[in-house]
Amino acid sequence: MEHRFENVLPEEIEKRSFEIITEELGDIQLDMEKAPIIKRVIHTSADFDYVHNLCFSDNVVQIALSAIKNGASILTDTKMASVGINAGKLGAYGGKVYCFISDQDVAQEAKEKGSTRAAVCMEKASTIPEPLIIAVGNAPTALIRLDQLIRSGQIKPVLVIGVPVGFVNVVQSKELIMLSGVPYIVARGRKGGSNVAAAICNALLYSL
Amino acid sequence: MEHRFENVLPEEIEKRSFEIITEELGDIQLDMEKAPIIKRVIHTSADFDYVHNLCFSDNVVQIALSAIKNGASILTDTKMASVGINAGKLGAYGGKVYCFISDQDVAQEAKEKGSTRAAVCMEKASTIPEPLIIAVGNAPTALIRLDQLIRSGQIKPVLVIGVPVGFVNVVQSKELIMLSGVPYIVARGRKGGSNVAAAICNALLYSL
Repeated sequence: MEHRFENVLPEEIEKRSFEIITEELGDIQLDMEKAPIIKRVIHTSADFDYVHNLCFSDNVVQIALSAIKNGASILTDTKMASVGINAGKLGAYGGKVYCFISDQDVAQEAKEKGSTRAAVCMEKASTIPEPLIIAVGNAPTALIRLDQLIRSGQIKPVLVIGVPVGFVNVVQSKELIMLSGVPYIVARGRKGGSNVAAAICNALLYSL
Repeated sequence: MEHRFENVLPEEIEKRSFEIITEELGDIQLDMEKAPIIKRVIHTSADFDYVHNLCFSDNVVQIALSAIKNGASILTDTKMASVGINAGKLGAYGGKVYCFISDQDVAQEAKEKGSTRAAVCMEKASTIPEPLIIAVGNAPTALIRLDQLIRSGQIKPVLVIGVPVGFVNVVQSKELIMLSGVPYIVARGRKGGSNVAAAICNALLYSL
């Protein structure tokens, strides 16, 4: 069996990947602001379903970019997402990447409450003083708790990136957060993940 | 719109997810050894394509489990995959999780050679003395370099988990590694990712 490799310089691989994605999208016209996000999620998953899955609230890209420029931080529900976000780029505008999922106090409180660590992380998020983008890539329980905290006025994120993945309450948690009144980017349905959460954050950062 | 949530205890969410996956697989009969790996990848991606994409060399699950029990380490090409692997479980058998992608010397050498950092990481992997599982979740260039190192006898991994994702040389790099003579678990085609690499490693660990 012969393997014909494309001869692409290391620094050109990403550019070439985006060209291929654009070619394969064919006649599908993407909104100019959303296109870098949709394409980067496809780039990270090789899954064109995200063309149809990704939902954006009104003006969410402008809201996100302006928040990042003004020093917003990003909180995620997994270590995988947190190390996938370009912290250097975010830091250049003053923001930090937070993830509390491995914190001792979070584990302890989740155990006491019979809750998940991810849900408790959302409560801890309300202690962060600066404007906050919350990116949920794993746990629907985080989105569900977040929705309660938003509705009771205990937290007001700049934007929620709601892309948990899975089979139990994932679909429902995303529908819920889209009705909570906060700006959102959500991958409707079961699909998503830490990689998708990080990709959306990075797409925003690279749009600046 | 009403959201009917399933009432599932936190510690039961994963179990329930696997039940749903099994239900939806319906009549598809999975090999008993491979099933936990295939199901965990579906669990991490909500993508049933992996039922058909995942390719296993002969006896690879037995080879992998026996290597882990004997203290094999796991090297990955991304920080995301490396933090996603259950290092505690692996450590209980004596193995470590390695990732060299952010090392200064790797960046320097990649620049000098006009190579990718991921490819240079594979060269650095040959300095690890213990038996090694190499899990590639991102860079096809890592698989291509690895294939060269295997063929020239410079490295002999216990097993290669070849699940890079993307559009440039990804498909070809996977076909190549499946012909290199090492035991493999590969996600044929474009799909894969750091999350998939970590999920396969964890499925192996949880099978022990």
